[in-house]
Amino acid sequence: MITSVSNPQMKFLGKLIKKAKFRREQGLFAAEGIKMAAEAEELKIVKKLYVTETGLEALEKRLGKKPGCETELVSEQVLFNIADTVSPQGVLALVKMPEYDLEEILNQEQANLLFLEEIRDPGNLGTIVRTAECAGVNGIILSGGCVDLFNPKTVRATMGAVFRMPFVYTEQFPAAMETAKKKGIRVFGAHLQGTRDFFAEDYRGKTAFVIGNEAKGMSPAAAEASFLVKIPMEGGSESLNASVAAAVMMYEAYRQKRRGKMEK
Amino acid sequence: MITSVSNPQMKFLGKLIKKAKFRREQGLFAAEGIKMAAEAEELKIVKKLYVTETGLEALEKRLGKKPGCETELVSEQVLFNIADTVSPQGVLALVKMPEYDLEEILNQEQANLLFLEEIRDPGNLGTIVRTAECAGVNGIILSGGCVDLFNPKTVRATMGAVFRMPFVYTEQFPAAMETAKKKGIRVFGAHLQGTRDFFAEDYRGKTAFVIGNEAKGMSPAAAEASFLVKIPMEGGSESLNASVAAAVMMYEAYRQKRRGKMEK
Repeated sequence: MITSVSNPQMKFLGKLIKKAKFRREQGLFAAEGIKMAAEAEELKIVKKLYVTETGLEALEKRLGKKPGCETELVSEQVLFNIADTVSPQGVLALVKMPEYDLEEILNQEQANLLFLEEIRDPGNLGTIVRTAECAGVNGIILSGGCVDLFNPKTVRATMGAVFRMPFVYTEQFPAAMETAKKKGIRVFGAHLQGTRDFFAEDYRGKTAFVIGNEAKGMSPAAAEASFLVKIPMEGGSESLNASVAAAVMMYEAYRQKRRGKMEK
Repeated sequence: MITSVSNPQMKFLGKLIKKAKFRREQGLFAAEGIKMAAEAEELKIVKKLYVTETGLEALEKRLGKKPGCETELVSEQVLFNIADTVSPQGVLALVKMPEYDLEEILNQEQANLLFLEEIRDPGNLGTIVRTAECAGVNGIILSGGCVDLFNPKTVRATMGAVFRMPFVYTEQFPAAMETAKKKGIRVFGAHLQGTRDFFAEDYRGKTAFVIGNEAKGMSPAAAEASFLVKIPMEGGSESLNASVAAAVMMYEAYRQKRRGKMEK
């Protein structure tokens, strides 16, 4: 059992939790909690599990068996010290970062994508990824300025969707939008200056939505590359929260696609 | 100019920012930032403004005039010390709490309501109120177990909607739902056990949506009093974030109501 925070593995984990660059270099990230570890374990992407005795018991109960990957016991004091959460559950999975290809994401026959530009709040990004999976989105393209998807707060907010959602970061964000358009994907951006009513458009074909930065919205280059629509709004508010705007858009497309399928 | 944190007014403000009970007793709350103070000032609900010299200048620029209410200068050091935000703007408005009546909210001819049960996260509550205003909701009924709407984090997340949205807290939450139903309001709750497809229902008439606690969902009593629908979902996720579920529901009702109006 590991009983010291100076243990090299614990130092490695601590660095992995704190530093995005280190996560990228190692191709690894940490997923905390019983639910998250169980989902990663079922997908066979866990490199190693670090657990307290109580944590292991709860995880085995959830899995219905012993975990199939290497498992190491850690004292509560040490694991709770390293964990990012306020109420740690005594389970921390060291998970292999998945890798996806932009071309493959864009070439999907039923492409249903999100372009995220400079989303800076880890919770917002996690919520968007969670909602995206629910709404049937099958790929996310993130600008280099977005917060790291493997930030512990983001990973938690995805509720596991981070393990399954194809994504790619790109420094050529507007160029990727143009490539998507060339492949027959209609790229819509919600914009205060949009003249077309968001709800009047048809989203049943290959579709992508662009969500801009929480404070500044979309960049001029991204707006230029998008078909701009306006989400209608009552009252004195100027805009919706980024993760809410994303949810409204994705669920309207999902509603239309489902209705299309039901009518066939 | 106030230059000491021990100044009685500063102590009063500090307590108001930290304690929900004290806010209720005083019928006052604090709204931070230029945008929020400007909106409250325009609604003439500010009791007093506390500003740094730079803050006042920015506020006057935004308002296009001097504020019409009593204004007191505070040193940066003191006001930044009291503020709840990480990057304070040097403007803090002491705002009178509005009061609304449950009967009036329920008696509205075009009632378009939300019932919030045990929403515990201040940011979630604020986002829900902000989205509600955008989607044309005209009243919110909160269970006693919800976080305080005047929590500084909630106030900020509403982006000003907190000043305008009629709301009422009630300890008789399921009873209020029953009263709404007697008044011809259809009360829908999103529930994992809901058998009806959320998108197959008609929300053009008097409608209310029930949103349950972030972790536990709706209580059995609230579920019992609701018409249960299921928001369709793809993939491995079990549920949507509470503020996302609320947004999807409110915007679908708004979409239907707008389309109804356009068809007339």
